Amino acid sequence: MILDLPLQLAEQSPYYKHLGITIVEAREGFAKLRLNFMECLTHPFGYLHGGAVASLADSAGINAVLTMLKDEQKALTLEMKINYLLPVKDTAIFAEARIVHKGKKFALADVDIKNSDDQLVAKAIVTCAIM
Amino acid sequence: MILDLPLQLAEQSPYYKHLGITIVEAREGFAKLRLNFMECLTHPFGYLHGGAVASLADSAGINAVLTMLKDEQKALTLEMKINYLLPVKDTAIFAEARIVHKGKKFALADVDIKNSDDQLVAKAIVTCAIM
Amino acid sequence: MILDLPLQLAEQSPYYKHLGITIVEAREGFAKLRLNFMECLTHPFGYLHGGAVASLADSAGINAVLTMLKDEQKALTLEMKINYLLPVKDTAIFAEARIVHKGKKFALADVDIKNSDDQLVAKAIVTCAIM
Amino acid sequence: MILDLPLQLAEQSPYYKHLGITIVEAREGFAKLRLNFMECLTHPFGYLHGGAVASLADSAGINAVLTMLKDEQKALTLEMKINYLLPVKDTAIFAEARIVHKGKKFALADVDIKNSDDQLVAKAIVTCAIM
Repeated sequence: MILDLPLQLAEQSPYYKHLGITIVEAREGFAKLRLNFMECLTHPFGYLHGGAVASLADSAGINAVLTMLKDEQKALTLEMKINYLLPVKDTAIFAEARIVHKGKKFALADVDIKNSDDQLVAKAIVTCAIM
Repeated sequence: MILDLPLQLAEQSPYYKHLGITIVEAREGFAKLRLNFMECLTHPFGYLHGGAVASLADSAGINAVLTMLKDEQKALTLEMKINYLLPVKDTAIFAEARIVHKGKKFALADVDIKNSDDQLVAKAIVTCAIM
Repeated sequence: MILDLPLQLAEQSPYYKHLGITIVEAREGFAKLRLNFMECLTHPFGYLHGGAVASLADSAGINAVLTMLKDEQKALTLEMKINYLLPVKDTAIFAEARIVHKGKKFALADVDIKNSDDQLVAKAIVTCAIM
Repeated sequence: MILDLPLQLAEQSPYYKHLGITIVEAREGFAKLRLNFMECLTHPFGYLHGGAVASLADSAGINAVLTMLKDEQKALTLEMKINYLLPVKDTAIFAEARIVHKGKKFALADVDIKNSDDQLVAKAIVTCAIM
């Protein structure tokens, strides 16, 4: 079943393991991913590096797209935009990706990244190509 | 001397170490960073995860800005846009960030990310706030 | 009263008049603007030019920010990202901008642009600087 | 000849006429467009509206892509990101778009927007879909 695909991929993704990204939820048009706060993901001053946040946002976007594909289809990230709103320290963060448009060749995911207090720490839009 | 700042920071950055990011060159208005290809940075199919590319682009942008700051100033990434152009496999990548605008409160870095064959694999623009 | 500011500005904006942009609604943290479909805003093939859509999105974003400012404050657009999702022909479009973050120096507006059938035709994020 | 296409389109574009956009130069992988400063394109305080700048950037990007297409191919703007760097008043602006990547389905244009003093007033990246 197609909705299992994100979970299967995530279990096999070396990058997810390296950064501590896990999939919390995946249903049609939606994916929620978690990144644990780890010291190895920080700047010298103890804050989470933006690249880790961007990695989580990108991953959430592509997983939300994967939930909408047919078996033979693939998707990849074409481009991403991200705004960093609040610094992150000592808290897991969660990215919720919602598909706001799906055409034959493209899909667009709107991604909110929040801390464990449910504050918006970053906002991203991810464009995926469907093949 | 201010131009030493990126190098000092990089040596102390847990995230750089975790991803294998090093600073190749930093001079006024320019920074070149390297990311080694490592299996732990890949998707299940063996390609470099976009988040690793974005992490390198963000890091290059902020380092280019750091080369232009006065001693007491700080900078952080406000937002980033990145286009992924070619898949990356079995090659180090290099991000070259050039400051195309520096005001009192903002600076903009134009970032080219290339593989070891000098092909453009991604293109990013990084906006930094100066404080 | 600060909430009158968008309406006052809009009445005095030469560009709004030139493009046919009007403000439908403005309340704290939200602005809805309308662009009428006019032949002078089209490509040779009869579709609305993306620049007109971007103009509406930018205007909606800045107006949503204006609703949240104190009397002496000003705002300007720092950067914008827009995805074009559906072609627009023979229909007015509406941009709904919601402030998803407001700090001391920046605010972020999430902008949905829809046609008169309530279909999402474009999606934008607008970053404004507050002075 | 394919390089004539931008010039032909521009002559027939109602939007270009409405905003005062003209094509200065178009050769393989490059297009330079001009926007005249007109009072009808301004904010209440006399500065050029960002939407007019974005319209010029989008137009430059798509024209640069058009110079690289085969006769039967078409292109449209998929998404655009733009950073506004300097206010514009009483000066024509020029957008120079360079194609930095062209694949089978996508092309990416890097766009510099300058005033008549050759200062960078905005920077954009335009992603076009090729059909």
